[in-house]
Order: sequence, then structure tokens, then C-alpha cells
Amino acid sequence: METKIPVIQDCNFAGYDASSLMAETARLRNIITKRGTLEILIPLCCSTEPVRYKQFRQALKGISSKTLASRLKELEKGGILERRAYSEIPPRVEYRLTGKGQELVESVMYLLQWMKKWSGT
Amino acid sequence: METKIPVIQDCNFAGYDASSLMAETARLRNIITKRGTLEILIPLCCSTEPVRYKQFRQALKGISSKTLASRLKELEKGGILERRAYSEIPPRVEYRLTGKGQELVESVMYLLQWMKKWSGT
Repeated sequence: METKIPVIQDCNFAGYDASSLMAETARLRNIITKRGTLEILIPLCCSTEPVRYKQFRQALKGISSKTLASRLKELEKGGILERRAYSEIPPRVEYRLTGKGQELVESVMYLLQWMKKWSGT
Repeated sequence: METKIPVIQDCNFAGYDASSLMAETARLRNIITKRGTLEILIPLCCSTEPVRYKQFRQALKGISSKTLASRLKELEKGGILERRAYSEIPPRVEYRLTGKGQELVESVMYLLQWMKKWSGT
């Protein structure tokens, strides 16, 4: 018995050369797949509020301060997060998603939902 | 000037512990991020037709036969691809997406589209 699978709607990759696509997307894939990146994006996904550095620190227990700092810098450099520092005492540093970052998070959520759904299988 | 970013619709990860989610999804993330996996999924994404082993071989130029064979086996074991071998001369081996695989490809496409859109930036 064969299961009929529907063709994906709006597939933009018909006839696309897989190697070219991988080359084109290498830099961004590299950022996304690094240890810590998804962990940083998750607390930002369900809210429009900026997230403070110390909130990331508290939420990301398995990740060293050094790794967290590098990831935040890469995500800022990649135009995904916007960093804002306030001259207060004690100093306050906040991160929020840019438009590009918001689109990334939306795309990543689909994949995370798939992984969550099938994680027990 | 602050850009107002809309809250993501249907975000299922509000208040979710990032570390738990990463632990839950580790096995599937591991499959997806391995070199060669996305290249294998792309030719399958826009069609309901099965793909023959030798078509993968031709399309995936930068990937060794050994890597391709391991990835296909992992994707089959992970319930993402279904392998079918026909006793013909010469032997014919075909792969098609399962329902789970189809859902994966749909989710991955969103991310690939994001990467393609922003690859030049």
C-alpha cells in the first residue's frame, strides 16, 4: 500500500541545484547550527520585549559565559539581534530581534515544532 | 526610532525551558545538521516522485558515496525516508519521503527560504 503524499505548496526549490543552495546558505547555516544559538533565540521568540544579558545568563545553564558572549556578538554582527547598552548603574544591556531575526525565529519555530513532535519516535 | 515587531502567532514555546528543548530535540537536530542531509532532502521536496539512488549520486557532487550511503541509512532509520529495492537487472533502489519526512521538509523549506533571502547580507 502506497501512501499518497501531497506536493509541497509554494516550493521554491524545484530544479534547484542542492550544492549551490548549500554554498549560498553556508554562512547563515553556520550561525544557526552553532551550539547556543537556538537557546538564545527561544526566549526571544514569544515576546516583543527585549531580553537582558543577565536573563540569557540565567536561562542558558549549560552554556559558558564565553560561548554566550560569542554567540550574541555573532548574532548581532549577522543582523539578527540588536544590542542596546544603557549607561545606568549597574549597566544594563538588552537584546532584541531585528526584522531579519524575527523572520529567522519564525522559520526556526516550524523546525523546532517538528522536532518536538517527533522527538519520542 | 524603535521598530515595532509583531509577536509570533501560535508560538508554542512561551515559557519553555531552552535547555530541555535542546535536550529533547538533540537526536533529530543531529540528523538534520549533518553534512549531506539537506542536500538529500532538497531533490525530494518539490515532487511526489521517488528518487533513485543514482539520481542522488549525480546531484550531490561534493559528497562522497560513503557519506551519502550513511546519510540515507540514517534518514531511513529515523523514519524520514522509505527505501524500496526492486529485484531488477540492474537493481533499482528508490527513496521517498514518509509522512514524517514530508513534514520535516516543509519545515526545513521555511528556513532555507530565509537563508536564501538573506544570504547576500
